[in-house]
Amino acid sequence: MEKKLVYTGKTKDVFALENGNYLLKFKDDCTGKDGVFDPGENSVGLTIDGVGDVNLRMSVYFFEKINAAGIKTHYVSADLADTTMEVLPAKVFGQGLEVICRNKAVGSFRRRYGEYIAEGADLPSYVEMTFKNDEKGDPLVTKDGLVVLGVMTEKQYDDTKEMTQKITKIVSDELAAKGLVLYDIKFEFGYGADGSVMLIDEVASGNMRVYKEGQYVDPMTLSKLFFA
Amino acid sequence: MEKKLVYTGKTKDVFALENGNYLLKFKDDCTGKDGVFDPGENSVGLTIDGVGDVNLRMSVYFFEKINAAGIKTHYVSADLADTTMEVLPAKVFGQGLEVICRNKAVGSFRRRYGEYIAEGADLPSYVEMTFKNDEKGDPLVTKDGLVVLGVMTEKQYDDTKEMTQKITKIVSDELAAKGLVLYDIKFEFGYGADGSVMLIDEVASGNMRVYKEGQYVDPMTLSKLFFA
Repeated sequence: MEKKLVYTGKTKDVFALENGNYLLKFKDDCTGKDGVFDPGENSVGLTIDGVGDVNLRMSVYFFEKINAAGIKTHYVSADLADTTMEVLPAKVFGQGLEVICRNKAVGSFRRRYGEYIAEGADLPSYVEMTFKNDEKGDPLVTKDGLVVLGVMTEKQYDDTKEMTQKITKIVSDELAAKGLVLYDIKFEFGYGADGSVMLIDEVASGNMRVYKEGQYVDPMTLSKLFFA
Repeated sequence: MEKKLVYTGKTKDVFALENGNYLLKFKDDCTGKDGVFDPGENSVGLTIDGVGDVNLRMSVYFFEKINAAGIKTHYVSADLADTTMEVLPAKVFGQGLEVICRNKAVGSFRRRYGEYIAEGADLPSYVEMTFKNDEKGDPLVTKDGLVVLGVMTEKQYDDTKEMTQKITKIVSDELAAKGLVLYDIKFEFGYGADGSVMLIDEVASGNMRVYKEGQYVDPMTLSKLFFA
């Protein structure tokens, strides 16, 4: 099929396909700073051989499970030899929105609300959304905020929250089966022409904070453990 | 009636009364920095003769309107000669929660979400809540966040939001009658022994951002215009 490069991203290139779908080419470039891999960073910091392949493989693994559970995603198919994934067209919310689901109080949640909760305390799959904006430290935005800013409808918010909790449970259960504990995970969602919400982007080790026997597992190690 | 000092606040002293209520003594101390009045500051910056009196009078004016509209507040009565207000006992949410209602996009809302909305654009009485914490820049907290942190129940959140919008309309209408436009306003809420939410603290010019003919009106000027 003919393909046309439409966007060169930090970790993926995007091609338009003749059938109206898009092709994501997973690259070996990682976000990070000073040569250290950091999924939270928004600039490319280093290149690691095989990262694109492992991120694609984990994404395919989870997208297939999520689709099978009846939760809409942009995933259509993948070509592992070519490190590409075919996806449905989707619009993103605003100028980039991160949807975070937290099972444990760590990271920025704990920094914000440390007076009210102990480090690592259980959370009941708490969902929050932040705008991607490095300069502003990815500001938190409420459901009402998203609605008044015209970024999401109330229904899209409610659907996104419910889908996020279901997807997090799928990922968390898969990890638990390997002795791994999911602390939190971030997703991107988009919407189709009819406004219906779908999970987009990727579901890879850089999107989640995972612990094993009380010790943090970095994304590279997580990918290795996951496919061991 | 016997009274016992139980708390010395920045702008008010609190006395326990024999009947179980409390007496708030409004002082002439204002929050601010370097001798400049700033309601957003959490330390006392200066003393202005008559500020306690004018803040009490405006609070009494609004609390009586709000009570008359059937919205629960802590207000019982006032003694203007003594600059005191008798109030019902109430617990605060967490370690201090600010409830903000915004009719126009200015201030911290605009700083957070400037890519999505123009300065001064209309907002439909958008309500948000922040924890009082200077060091952390008064972090925003969502409804779900307040619930998982055990600070509010879902019902208390919904009640607080609805009461806030009704109270803001009362204040906004009163100001409009004097040619003044309310941009945003912050409140404190508490709850009684049965968990029911009530408006507490004060409703004074330092709690609101008001404009007249497109120009910002500072709190001291606002008090003068209000009682002119």
